[in-house]
Amino acid sequence: MSTEFLLPVRVYIEDTDAGGIVYYVNYLKYFERCRTELMRALGTERAAISESGWMFVVSKLEVSYRQPAHLDDELQATASITAVGGATIGLFQSVRRGETVLVEGDVQIACVDCETGRPRRLPHLLRRQADASLSAKGDTA
Amino acid sequence: MSTEFLLPVRVYIEDTDAGGIVYYVNYLKYFERCRTELMRALGTERAAISESGWMFVVSKLEVSYRQPAHLDDELQATASITAVGGATIGLFQSVRRGETVLVEGDVQIACVDCETGRPRRLPHLLRRQADASLSAKGDTA
Amino acid sequence: MSTEFLLPVRVYIEDTDAGGIVYYVNYLKYFERCRTELMRALGTERAAISESGWMFVVSKLEVSYRQPAHLDDELQATASITAVGGATIGLFQSVRRGETVLVEGDVQIACVDCETGRPRRLPHLLRRQADASLSAKGDTA
Amino acid sequence: MSTEFLLPVRVYIEDTDAGGIVYYVNYLKYFERCRTELMRALGTERAAISESGWMFVVSKLEVSYRQPAHLDDELQATASITAVGGATIGLFQSVRRGETVLVEGDVQIACVDCETGRPRRLPHLLRRQADASLSAKGDTA
Repeated sequence: MSTEFLLPVRVYIEDTDAGGIVYYVNYLKYFERCRTELMRALGTERAAISESGWMFVVSKLEVSYRQPAHLDDELQATASITAVGGATIGLFQSVRRGETVLVEGDVQIACVDCETGRPRRLPHLLRRQADASLSAKGDTA
Repeated sequence: MSTEFLLPVRVYIEDTDAGGIVYYVNYLKYFERCRTELMRALGTERAAISESGWMFVVSKLEVSYRQPAHLDDELQATASITAVGGATIGLFQSVRRGETVLVEGDVQIACVDCETGRPRRLPHLLRRQADASLSAKGDTA
Repeated sequence: MSTEFLLPVRVYIEDTDAGGIVYYVNYLKYFERCRTELMRALGTERAAISESGWMFVVSKLEVSYRQPAHLDDELQATASITAVGGATIGLFQSVRRGETVLVEGDVQIACVDCETGRPRRLPHLLRRQADASLSAKGDTA
Repeated sequence: MSTEFLLPVRVYIEDTDAGGIVYYVNYLKYFERCRTELMRALGTERAAISESGWMFVVSKLEVSYRQPAHLDDELQATASITAVGGATIGLFQSVRRGETVLVEGDVQIACVDCETGRPRRLPHLLRRQADASLSAKGDTA
């Protein structure tokens, strides 16, 4: 059983740069689209900014760029939860073209209060869902 | 006397696309940077989103793309006020490289309430400043 | 019979701005994604930059912003061909949320040589397909 | 003596997101603008994509986000060279507001052939300049 979440991504002109490849920051947009859909799949409709006054912000990034993507490529962005803390979630994410890993790395997101920007405990339901996703993955080991 | 407002802009990789030129929507970012600095010059420190509950949104765009800009180009974005209405300001804007006009057109921005999104009369001081800028220009005709 | 082309678009954090709405230039990215898919549907796999040495650039834009889109919105971008010239294609494009038109306008794209940037006649097959799309639309009147 | 390179950056609407802060990937655009100007200062006018057939791509990122930046903020992006390899340059980069570090981390860029994307030795002059920048820094220890 795998809890890796997949999102298909098409490369458009907006994503590319004058080097003829996808601009390096834009893979991180793909990462975020995929994280957002993962959260939605875990039951959090307002997946990035909640109506209950909290939002997720990225607190740490560690990314390796292995191969470039090009205009018109059909890619897959992936995300799987690797750690759940009191106010943070760790994910392993990648962008692939078929079997080839183009970009991969670890992303830590933190739940913060929309007004103050201070860390805030993960909403209970989300935490339970994230834990479940994490356990499901552990089971495969 | 001219009230054309000028902002120097350097083209970075982020602005370009796989065609080797500046991506068409990014000139409109240059337009907005220049409008924002024009507003700041007119005395509106929070030039795009006020702390008094209003913000500017673009309501109309009419743009002609004449020549492309390239990576590392040093450009000038320009803005001059052409019309002041109850809740709107009209501007003529361009992006130039030296004497060459690359992109130019008319932009209408509208003052709206941050919460409701409804049109809202221009703040008094801003309206007076915008009118003054308009008159100064009229004087040159 | 309708030849309006539709592309579903989800609004992500990357698309929004501090006003809490989609940033005005980002609707034009939705426009371009939709144009690209329309071209692909007309049989042009390399839909934006051909391997035969030509590409499309935007030459004119005329856009009205009627209502804002928000984070997590599910939108539709649309494109229909309204004119076919020697080296240009005119399109009417919109972004809608359900029945509500948020943004709409006319976009003219020009076929140019990738090296010189000079206008270049539309590839024969693409021109025929674009004409067919235009006629199909005319038939509905 | 310090060889930290500084570039002032103003936050515009384009940089922000619906959370009311600068969107996390956009700090990486500031990083790249600063790297580009550092390269230009080292004598490489075509600082990102050379006319001699090579370009820089990012190969690794490790970034910590400490505090958010907001609309209208005046920031400083910084870059200092920390390692020079055969085909790579390591940099320490940050974005600060006054004395406060908002974002910081390590970036590795690789020199690649524009056509093949394969690693390519750093141009001789650039390597010498980068080494000099590195030594100057070492001297301060």
